[in-house]
Amino acid sequence: MDIFQVVGTVVCTCRHPGIEQLPLRIVQDRKGKIQVAVDTIGSREGNWVFTISGSAARLALDDPSLLTDLTIGGVIDSWEE
Amino acid sequence: MDIFQVVGTVVCTCRHPGIEQLPLRIVQDRKGKIQVAVDTIGSREGNWVFTISGSAARLALDDPSLLTDLTIGGVIDSWEE
Amino acid sequence: MDIFQVVGTVVCTCRHPGIEQLPLRIVQDRKGKIQVAVDTIGSREGNWVFTISGSAARLALDDPSLLTDLTIGGVIDSWEE
Amino acid sequence: MDIFQVVGTVVCTCRHPGIEQLPLRIVQDRKGKIQVAVDTIGSREGNWVFTISGSAARLALDDPSLLTDLTIGGVIDSWEE
Amino acid sequence: MDIFQVVGTVVCTCRHPGIEQLPLRIVQDRKGKIQVAVDTIGSREGNWVFTISGSAARLALDDPSLLTDLTIGGVIDSWEE
Repeated sequence: MDIFQVVGTVVCTCRHPGIEQLPLRIVQDRKGKIQVAVDTIGSREGNWVFTISGSAARLALDDPSLLTDLTIGGVIDSWEE
Repeated sequence: MDIFQVVGTVVCTCRHPGIEQLPLRIVQDRKGKIQVAVDTIGSREGNWVFTISGSAARLALDDPSLLTDLTIGGVIDSWEE
Repeated sequence: MDIFQVVGTVVCTCRHPGIEQLPLRIVQDRKGKIQVAVDTIGSREGNWVFTISGSAARLALDDPSLLTDLTIGGVIDSWEE
Repeated sequence: MDIFQVVGTVVCTCRHPGIEQLPLRIVQDRKGKIQVAVDTIGSREGNWVFTISGSAARLALDDPSLLTDLTIGGVIDSWEE
Repeated sequence: MDIFQVVGTVVCTCRHPGIEQLPLRIVQDRKGKIQVAVDTIGSREGNWVFTISGSAARLALDDPSLLTDLTIGGVIDSWEE
């Protein structure tokens, strides 16, 4: 699972039916790469999160007809190294 | 989900049966990387879109016999940061 | 889906049973990256093709016991930009 | 499967229900790239491990409702070259 | 499917049950990137092989409870370009 920071929200009025009502966040990794992730746990801008990709991202949504390849899995409080 | 700009259309007369009648767009990310995506929502050249990859891309099509690994999920109106 | 040029054919006498009789092409992208793709549509060397990856590549073959993660989806005639 | 070194543990109190009780490790590859992996075999910091990604990562967990795209598959004792 | 050279064998006594008895090879691509692949066809060090990734890698094993995301698909004898 990858580590990203939530940096914003996407506004899309024209969406595929399978992703229609899902909140979409813009997330950015430490190298500046940007992706769009579904957020069902209520992350906020500035939060560091880890994301679940692939088929697991889709299964993370309650409704199997919803479509995504990237879902926020949790907000990271801290790291212990 | 990745962010791309629609830059053109692919003309392919010789196609695999599983992708025969699907409209194919050329999409380009901010670093210039080019991919081919199925478009079922009617995006236009110049639009910024987000794409769904993997098995979710396939499930985004109504007919399960159609094949793709990248489908346009929505047209981005704006970002809020 | 990625865009590749067909540059050759792989000769493999020792193959996994799940990929035994499939024609395998060497394909190369614009940055020189090389991959091996199953070809069921009869592409020729020099052709520019787009490829289907992941589980869709496997479903593109008629026999579900055949294995691949990359299948040629179509020969590109031209681009319209 | 990729090779990573375990470098720490993630603390996340706000998690998606599908990944709630799983121990999460921070793993780092030889180029410094960092990811989060589920650990069910009890790896320790400093261990070199190989990881299973994609749908196999999910199937590696006993409970099919648990979600992940990266699971530690084994601790590497040594390499023979 | 990617092209790799077999460069060694991994010794792992502590493994996830789903990958317990599988022979694991270290494979390296032309840019030096190293991965771990399951080998069921008996490749030898120095062999150039192509690998099957994702869910197809798992289906390439006879026992569906075995887990992997990379399986060696064949030994490459030669290329015709």
